[in-house]
Amino acid sequence: MKKSVELLLVGIGVGSPAQLTLAGVDAINRADIVLAPDKGAEKAMLAEVRRRILATVLKNPETRIIAYPSPLRDAAATDYEAAVERWHDDIAAVWRQRIAAALPDGGRAALLVWGDPSLFDSTLRIAERLASDFDLTVEVIPGVTALQALTAAHRIPLNEIGKPVLLTTGRKLTERGWPVDADTVAVFLDGACAFRTLRGAFAIWWGAYLGMEEQILVHGELEAVSDDIIRKRAEARRRHGWIMDIYLIRRIDRPKGAKEF
Amino acid sequence: MKKSVELLLVGIGVGSPAQLTLAGVDAINRADIVLAPDKGAEKAMLAEVRRRILATVLKNPETRIIAYPSPLRDAAATDYEAAVERWHDDIAAVWRQRIAAALPDGGRAALLVWGDPSLFDSTLRIAERLASDFDLTVEVIPGVTALQALTAAHRIPLNEIGKPVLLTTGRKLTERGWPVDADTVAVFLDGACAFRTLRGAFAIWWGAYLGMEEQILVHGELEAVSDDIIRKRAEARRRHGWIMDIYLIRRIDRPKGAKEF
Repeated sequence: MKKSVELLLVGIGVGSPAQLTLAGVDAINRADIVLAPDKGAEKAMLAEVRRRILATVLKNPETRIIAYPSPLRDAAATDYEAAVERWHDDIAAVWRQRIAAALPDGGRAALLVWGDPSLFDSTLRIAERLASDFDLTVEVIPGVTALQALTAAHRIPLNEIGKPVLLTTGRKLTERGWPVDADTVAVFLDGACAFRTLRGAFAIWWGAYLGMEEQILVHGELEAVSDDIIRKRAEARRRHGWIMDIYLIRRIDRPKGAKEF
Repeated sequence: MKKSVELLLVGIGVGSPAQLTLAGVDAINRADIVLAPDKGAEKAMLAEVRRRILATVLKNPETRIIAYPSPLRDAAATDYEAAVERWHDDIAAVWRQRIAAALPDGGRAALLVWGDPSLFDSTLRIAERLASDFDLTVEVIPGVTALQALTAAHRIPLNEIGKPVLLTTGRKLTERGWPVDADTVAVFLDGACAFRTLRGAFAIWWGAYLGMEEQILVHGELEAVSDDIIRKRAEARRRHGWIMDIYLIRRIDRPKGAKEF
């Protein structure tokens, strides 16, 4: 008979333990184990946030923190989608082994997910791979996304009144250009400053290391601040060894420079 | 000299006090006053969540809860946008009066915002209207949106791997039809079941009263479950006197009925 395993996928928000929800705190303390990637497997600043979260909110002395080595994606693979599938298989194999070893009679394992498990995140897809090994149930505890952290830091609404917003990636923005269906676009996972490829009048709200001490914000007309963002991004990435950033772009439908926005 | 007023716009998530973040709890307890709409001004179930949040997390004996009568939008107005502007002006006028009366020397006022203040919400736009009355600072504390609550309840990712998602309203979906820029659409503020206007093969994940005891979830192929959603929605709305729902639709690019999804 398969062991019963409950996976708690806890969205932890971005940047600080204060973005955890009360339901997230509860889930961490209900878990028998918390699966945490080994130091080195993720960026040191992210590992530090995770460590602080557990140090701050984990009060249950029965809950064990189980480290696992996080496999790397084959960055040299020519078939990107196949490489991602293999990478997810590898991570699932490590989880499977750690869960079986730590919970020989089954039990409850929590995973701390940056932002929210729904948005540009693979945790749910990896978790599904364990359904053939265990009598598996999955609970998702929603968390604040980087997008909410961005709009909060800039104190702006995401959407214009009653108007659509497209969430996309840097790669898609470059491939497809400005969408026809929305005047506001939020761009995730952009390592190449795709906003440089846009032509026209836009406002941009950019943020990196949101919610952390290192937070950087820039906003303004795209043409005016584009170089500033590119420079700040490159400098910060060099200094910290990594960067996590996101931005919102809105089309400006007035004559360029006509008034302050 | 204008009084210094700090507005804390606290995203409270949906449905339950457990969706509040630790930063949200802290903000409520840092506030001199919490501005709360009068009972009757909002749906009783929402008022109850707000009441439970304050009963659960407000520990600061100095924090006062200040009720205000929430003005109604002129539903008969022919110019929708102008009516919304006047409505926001009216709400700002009530806040202005309550803040001036409760904080004669200035101070810090918290507002509890359903979901997150960035997404299909007017709190930021109303708050801006107080900038001419007070030496105003605004802090946004991000919260879990109804969209994260929906995907968490269904245990699904919002986006397909690396693919865009359009956030829109029922009205826009009806006006514009299926977008060209995304295969996944999240629909907010749809009082008229706009999914009925779609033609083609789609999957839908629908949810109402998310996170509350009354939560209802439906998912399946759109054509198969559309009538079920329409019936459940109408029944629930009749029973509770109101409804708050949201859904995600994804295009299915396989022959209809070819396999279970």
